[in-house]
Amino acid sequence: MGKVFDAAEVAKHNNSKSCWVILYDKVYDVTDFVADHPGGANVILKLAGRDATEEYDPVHPTGTLEDNLKPEALLGTIDPATLPKIESSPATPQEAVDYPPVENLLNMDEIEELATAKISKKAWAYYYSAADDKISKRFNTEAFRSILLRPRIFIDCANCSLDTKLLDNHVTMPIYVSPAAQARLGHPSGEAGIAEACRSFGALQIISYSASMTPEEIVADASPEQVFGWQLYVQEGRTRSERMIARINKLTAIKFIVLTLDTPVMGKREDDQRGGDVISRITEEEDTSPKDSAQARDKKSFAGMDPTLTWTETLAWLAKHTSLPVILKGVQTHEDAYIASLHRPQVKAIILSNHGGRSLDTSPPVVHTLLEIRKYCPGVFDKVEVWVDGGVRRGTDVVKAMCLGAKGVGIGRPALFGLSAGGVDGVKRVLQILAEETKTCMRLLGVERLEQLGMQHINTRLVEQQIFDGPSNLAACRAAHLSKL
Amino acid sequence: MGKVFDAAEVAKHNNSKSCWVILYDKVYDVTDFVADHPGGANVILKLAGRDATEEYDPVHPTGTLEDNLKPEALLGTIDPATLPKIESSPATPQEAVDYPPVENLLNMDEIEELATAKISKKAWAYYYSAADDKISKRFNTEAFRSILLRPRIFIDCANCSLDTKLLDNHVTMPIYVSPAAQARLGHPSGEAGIAEACRSFGALQIISYSASMTPEEIVADASPEQVFGWQLYVQEGRTRSERMIARINKLTAIKFIVLTLDTPVMGKREDDQRGGDVISRITEEEDTSPKDSAQARDKKSFAGMDPTLTWTETLAWLAKHTSLPVILKGVQTHEDAYIASLHRPQVKAIILSNHGGRSLDTSPPVVHTLLEIRKYCPGVFDKVEVWVDGGVRRGTDVVKAMCLGAKGVGIGRPALFGLSAGGVDGVKRVLQILAEETKTCMRLLGVERLEQLGMQHINTRLVEQQIFDGPSNLAACRAAHLSKL
Amino acid sequence: MGKVFDAAEVAKHNNSKSCWVILYDKVYDVTDFVADHPGGANVILKLAGRDATEEYDPVHPTGTLEDNLKPEALLGTIDPATLPKIESSPATPQEAVDYPPVENLLNMDEIEELATAKISKKAWAYYYSAADDKISKRFNTEAFRSILLRPRIFIDCANCSLDTKLLDNHVTMPIYVSPAAQARLGHPSGEAGIAEACRSFGALQIISYSASMTPEEIVADASPEQVFGWQLYVQEGRTRSERMIARINKLTAIKFIVLTLDTPVMGKREDDQRGGDVISRITEEEDTSPKDSAQARDKKSFAGMDPTLTWTETLAWLAKHTSLPVILKGVQTHEDAYIASLHRPQVKAIILSNHGGRSLDTSPPVVHTLLEIRKYCPGVFDKVEVWVDGGVRRGTDVVKAMCLGAKGVGIGRPALFGLSAGGVDGVKRVLQILAEETKTCMRLLGVERLEQLGMQHINTRLVEQQIFDGPSNLAACRAAHLSKL
Amino acid sequence: MGKVFDAAEVAKHNNSKSCWVILYDKVYDVTDFVADHPGGANVILKLAGRDATEEYDPVHPTGTLEDNLKPEALLGTIDPATLPKIESSPATPQEAVDYPPVENLLNMDEIEELATAKISKKAWAYYYSAADDKISKRFNTEAFRSILLRPRIFIDCANCSLDTKLLDNHVTMPIYVSPAAQARLGHPSGEAGIAEACRSFGALQIISYSASMTPEEIVADASPEQVFGWQLYVQEGRTRSERMIARINKLTAIKFIVLTLDTPVMGKREDDQRGGDVISRITEEEDTSPKDSAQARDKKSFAGMDPTLTWTETLAWLAKHTSLPVILKGVQTHEDAYIASLHRPQVKAIILSNHGGRSLDTSPPVVHTLLEIRKYCPGVFDKVEVWVDGGVRRGTDVVKAMCLGAKGVGIGRPALFGLSAGGVDGVKRVLQILAEETKTCMRLLGVERLEQLGMQHINTRLVEQQIFDGPSNLAACRAAHLSKL
Repeated sequence: MGKVFDAAEVAKHNNSKSCWVILYDKVYDVTDFVADHPGGANVILKLAGRDATEEYDPVHPTGTLEDNLKPEALLGTIDPATLPKIESSPATPQEAVDYPPVENLLNMDEIEELATAKISKKAWAYYYSAADDKISKRFNTEAFRSILLRPRIFIDCANCSLDTKLLDNHVTMPIYVSPAAQARLGHPSGEAGIAEACRSFGALQIISYSASMTPEEIVADASPEQVFGWQLYVQEGRTRSERMIARINKLTAIKFIVLTLDTPVMGKREDDQRGGDVISRITEEEDTSPKDSAQARDKKSFAGMDPTLTWTETLAWLAKHTSLPVILKGVQTHEDAYIASLHRPQVKAIILSNHGGRSLDTSPPVVHTLLEIRKYCPGVFDKVEVWVDGGVRRGTDVVKAMCLGAKGVGIGRPALFGLSAGGVDGVKRVLQILAEETKTCMRLLGVERLEQLGMQHINTRLVEQQIFDGPSNLAACRAAHLSKL
Repeated sequence: MGKVFDAAEVAKHNNSKSCWVILYDKVYDVTDFVADHPGGANVILKLAGRDATEEYDPVHPTGTLEDNLKPEALLGTIDPATLPKIESSPATPQEAVDYPPVENLLNMDEIEELATAKISKKAWAYYYSAADDKISKRFNTEAFRSILLRPRIFIDCANCSLDTKLLDNHVTMPIYVSPAAQARLGHPSGEAGIAEACRSFGALQIISYSASMTPEEIVADASPEQVFGWQLYVQEGRTRSERMIARINKLTAIKFIVLTLDTPVMGKREDDQRGGDVISRITEEEDTSPKDSAQARDKKSFAGMDPTLTWTETLAWLAKHTSLPVILKGVQTHEDAYIASLHRPQVKAIILSNHGGRSLDTSPPVVHTLLEIRKYCPGVFDKVEVWVDGGVRRGTDVVKAMCLGAKGVGIGRPALFGLSAGGVDGVKRVLQILAEETKTCMRLLGVERLEQLGMQHINTRLVEQQIFDGPSNLAACRAAHLSKL
Repeated sequence: MGKVFDAAEVAKHNNSKSCWVILYDKVYDVTDFVADHPGGANVILKLAGRDATEEYDPVHPTGTLEDNLKPEALLGTIDPATLPKIESSPATPQEAVDYPPVENLLNMDEIEELATAKISKKAWAYYYSAADDKISKRFNTEAFRSILLRPRIFIDCANCSLDTKLLDNHVTMPIYVSPAAQARLGHPSGEAGIAEACRSFGALQIISYSASMTPEEIVADASPEQVFGWQLYVQEGRTRSERMIARINKLTAIKFIVLTLDTPVMGKREDDQRGGDVISRITEEEDTSPKDSAQARDKKSFAGMDPTLTWTETLAWLAKHTSLPVILKGVQTHEDAYIASLHRPQVKAIILSNHGGRSLDTSPPVVHTLLEIRKYCPGVFDKVEVWVDGGVRRGTDVVKAMCLGAKGVGIGRPALFGLSAGGVDGVKRVLQILAEETKTCMRLLGVERLEQLGMQHINTRLVEQQIFDGPSNLAACRAAHLSKL
Repeated sequence: MGKVFDAAEVAKHNNSKSCWVILYDKVYDVTDFVADHPGGANVILKLAGRDATEEYDPVHPTGTLEDNLKPEALLGTIDPATLPKIESSPATPQEAVDYPPVENLLNMDEIEELATAKISKKAWAYYYSAADDKISKRFNTEAFRSILLRPRIFIDCANCSLDTKLLDNHVTMPIYVSPAAQARLGHPSGEAGIAEACRSFGALQIISYSASMTPEEIVADASPEQVFGWQLYVQEGRTRSERMIARINKLTAIKFIVLTLDTPVMGKREDDQRGGDVISRITEEEDTSPKDSAQARDKKSFAGMDPTLTWTETLAWLAKHTSLPVILKGVQTHEDAYIASLHRPQVKAIILSNHGGRSLDTSPPVVHTLLEIRKYCPGVFDKVEVWVDGGVRRGTDVVKAMCLGAKGVGIGRPALFGLSAGGVDGVKRVLQILAEETKTCMRLLGVERLEQLGMQHINTRLVEQQIFDGPSNLAACRAAHLSKL
């Protein structure tokens, strides 16, 4: 431990046979770990023999090293004098660019624009990217836009409130922050910064399983009435996930677990693959043998995630490890919404989501799934709460989702871009804009409280001509469910 | 009153504690008024301690100071020698630009283009802006364009007339000028200039509640047969509105009152928020505390307007103060059209309008609302006159609206852009172009008089597949109406 | 007659009180004629006192002066020495530009592109322009494109013929040249050049009433089997039209009369109004008094055309003056197609046309009208021949029109642009390309002869969702027709 | 044979009367052959009297000279010293451009982009071009994009396989290489290079009749399990085709014959006509007499192909010459799919294809034809295998085609562009990308094996509103079929 290395010595260990890295002035031998790195071996090997702190830090929460490396992996410290000098950051003069204050930004587009100007290409690529040709990403927003509103007149609209309950937790708006990963890539205040902004508004935040800070750090300053959810990706072997759940069970600010199901394998996010290496952190490395690529990949899993999850096994396993309510995220068909509703009371809510268009391109926008449920199994809305995310950029989008039956409306990229554009104040600005737009819309519809919103306030004619039109076989879904009990 | 101030002294009173302004060479202490300014405190505070005449003048009608300030607010006069020299206007050489004469302009687009080149960014932003992403603004026009015409042949079209009656008042065309505010921003002849143009054509003009001239000034030169309407926004406390109605009752040229209902709170007009401060004149100031923003705003109102208007209370109140016929403006659903028709004889007409897309984005274009009424409650057309505005840019648009059942067709931005492009002559050119296009269209349809136009002249197939398809519950609307009588 | 004027003397007569012009080295006093000029007084007054030959020549057929002026209007000749020198044409070097030969051009777009580069802005504007926003002009072509073809396989397509009959006249292709005016604006060979090209292919040509050459000149070199039609616009007073019909009756190459009915008043062709003065030749001058404009214009007519035509009166009048078969051009609704079919045997064919989108913007493309007739009164196809024009740019468009029931398919702009691009060879190239494309399409559909084409070869699903859906009242049409007999 | 010519002597024989060319240092007299050249006389005449090797080589397979010329056509050899010096290729420095390695390319668009940068304009034009306005080419892809996917959750997707059988031949993926011609234009490894790539993946390749290498060369290195098909265009006179079939019968790697039926005459590929002369190789020369063009062309055939093929005659002829299974390519209607299914067992599969949009513009995309068959004669899927090609650019497209009933999915341009971008590695990259995308899509749908894919995984609502809606007369198809037996 007391040993001091010089950089030249470390630099020799730059391959898979012997792979050392410098992190926070310490020298680690990670040779044994390379193959198990959830983000793939390549990401580490690219940094082998070097100081990897700058790349490592913003994408790993505290404790990651301790969790993953054996104590003997820590070889000693580096002699800083032997490290190559980093030039006094040329970024400083660049950051002197005269950016507008976030309070001058009027909408989500302007916030994304400012964030794009400020953050690294790597961060931008990770936040911006979506699957394939980004058809679903665009369609998510367009589907909202193609619904028309029906304003009513001569109604007293002096009062208007966004107060609501999400799974019996009081929140001051139905808009919540989705489990968006890697917040520190955009701004050093990270997920804790988002938490601070949500606190000031009374808004709900769901913490990402891939957050760049630990859950404990994120909820550290939670106010008594603040509400969090926590996103779970089930990892292979399950022990790491079980350890995480145990930690979550102890955090009283976290009221429920959101099990994400729309990404058993990762979508093809080409901007990310071009723009940085965040994606490769959480995907497998490329196969080099084509034959192998087409066939043998079956054995591998996505970023260590368990691809074998099923309704029966996984929910039972989860029940053994936590008594927190469960929300299923990534429902994209009425069939799965219906099956989910059969699993209450364990499953208390579902989140309709195509993962912001990041998983499967040409998957349906939430507007479609909401209408599909209304068409084939409207009873779902009575049995579980239905939340949605994906494509929300305006208060009118929030209102339309709620007219269609949604109870909560999540924002992912807007929160990350807000954070990137202005830290805590940027996220506050995002929440403020959306909340004000939502209230303006409600007043112009002649509506005082969220629960008054309904199908009579919207014209969905155009979208209804596009949604799935069968075959639907809910009886089979039910039978399959019963046979597994 | 005789006291003479120098500019340096005035300049010290530049904050909310002590706020002085110079207007028309006089010095006023407006400290007490700042909080009550309908356009918000900020607009005044930005000009505090300075000569505000240039900003004040084009957006306030005569008498505004007297109406709003106590006599003792007038402190004295300014010593002009102490004011900073305004450079001899660099605008003059700019105005030497060789603009085309308005009689060379062929259509509304060219008129808007010339106006845009001539007027201030502030004026442009106020006229051009619409809510959010301007989807409704564009859709207003596109909806007209997606209706096809059905020209008939071998019909004698030697004669063709645009003569009609609007609420029993003879006019020479169904095209009228909508209550568009702040005309002096575009041209010094202002709303009186629009009146002069309408007079020369025999066209109807509705005077905006936010006109930059007084109603008395606007109708001063009215010809005996000239017809005006007057727009009412009901203000909180009602006394100011009652005073205005009393003045209107005395102006015989004004034949009816248009109660605007589509803007109980103001839409989010981002171009305006970026481009000038007109908008902030008539909106509240920004909240700085996010929590407050999401919750406490309920108590505030829009520009002093009363957000508590209702069918029963407000129409009864209005009946006490005027015997003029009432037109309800801003109807956007068949339900409200139907309810309005139950309030005749007091309500004699309704104006279908989404406020030029300025209030709620993705609200329906008038083409939708007309078809909705035809589908669910066609009897409305027999009970009240149905007028429309929003998106009209061609004579074919006028004809299509009338085929769908409209009696009058309003133009807002075209009138303001016409005025901006060429003063009185610009507005005349607008009316001339639209009237000629309308007649050409009628002749090519084989139609001699407006009342011959009908559904047989248009193909609305495309739009009909987009309009609202229920649920509709007119029985409930009727029951609610009866219960309130 | 022998009198010789110098230019300075003529130049004094430059106004409506005394208006002289020089044409082909002769001096005319046209003061009395100015008000009667079919193209409006302004066009003449702009040239008053000057040599107008260059402007006059390409748009007036031989004999126009003699037809319109009294003999005493000819005052004498001009002394050429006194005329201002015209600079040796700077156009010559420009024409040295290396244009591609027309045989290298592959499609209608390339031909239009070359023509646009070669001809004057005035000619381009006249040919290119269409009503208002050119929605119908674009839609004419788009409607063809949105029909899909259904190619059949394993059919012997060694033989394929475009031979057909149009009103019992044999032609070698169903593609004919529509009555497109002012061909000499594009190329000095003019309408006679088009005739030469048609002759070499055995194609039909319809001569425009506004041709820049006389019918006699155009048919002068007709081959024995060559077929012409002649377009009639009925002019006010009728005598001029009757004189023209008498001349036509004598030309055996002309087999029928096409009475154009879609332009009783002229559409608003803004490109033309901007780009030249061709349009003003055949439209009235602008009103200067706005009031007058909105009202008094009823008395005036379009370019001397008679706006009072009706089914009963006009067809009877025409029968008195010619025994040639009559084709009605400009039918745009199934109602008028049906009524026309009641007028056989005098009416032998109808041409569905919206005048290339030049008359009324948002009028329906022929694809709509064809489908409308099929839907409401398919018997029309058995009673009269149905021809179409508007938007045809590909052989596939020709085939689709014929699948829908058309017997003949006209091209207007392509012929004029072909002529402009390469004179006679340009028109030949146009006919060659379209004929070859048409045959290729037929072969790929597995069709040998035009009469085999039918609805089974196309998929019109998309368009059928857009066409007129009633109300239709053919019984009323029939009753009205009978009552007038 | 021993005679040595100098270039000046050869150059004299540069016309149709006496036409000599130099190929591979030999001098040939091709005067008698010019008129029979499948690609038209012009292509040869352009090169007459010169060394044509560079143009000839990449588009003719080995043995073409021997097959087509009589022995006496070979006159002798050229004296190389007399040939003009070819400058040391300026292409070399250009090729030094730093192209990205193909393994960095992420999708088909990037591969096409790199290929476009690398290959000659002639090759690009041949590969890229499609009929007329390329509407079908674009629509092929857009139709796939407008189908939405329906991802299912909570399904074990650890295993996923693309293994399938095509006509009882095991392949490791349903994606195969379509019979795309002229591979050596893009890369010297040619069709054999494609074969090598397919071999490494276990993918099927169909060899083009117009391949730039002989079938024997292409299959030379086939692995025991490798599967090929061979495309047949039936040529006039049949003897050449029969000779080719006899050669194919001997190649055991070739398992079936694909008879292409969608190009009895060639589509109008304008990019190709502009960009090079590949097209003219396989089309007739232009007619110069317009009359002739419109009429006399009937006698000529396309590139020597037999345009008289019919169901009864041609299949019987084919049965006489081979016992290989037959696949019919180019089916574009449900009627022809149905008729084909009546011809089993000889016909074992059909390929729905509009020839990549290269034959008839506005012909339907395969998505339409698949839905049409499902609508009118779904039994076809049980009787013959249905394969498709055209517009496939993503794994999601592959999956959608299979959900609709396709068993095999062909790629044409992607294979050629892959070869052009990186030779064998480029084709491998194409197959790798598409295979991986396909598996990702299957996993996200919750599907393990291809045969599980079905209509429940897609939403085709939008496309279903566009497909053919009758008339359909399958009874007549069946009757016609029976009458010919």
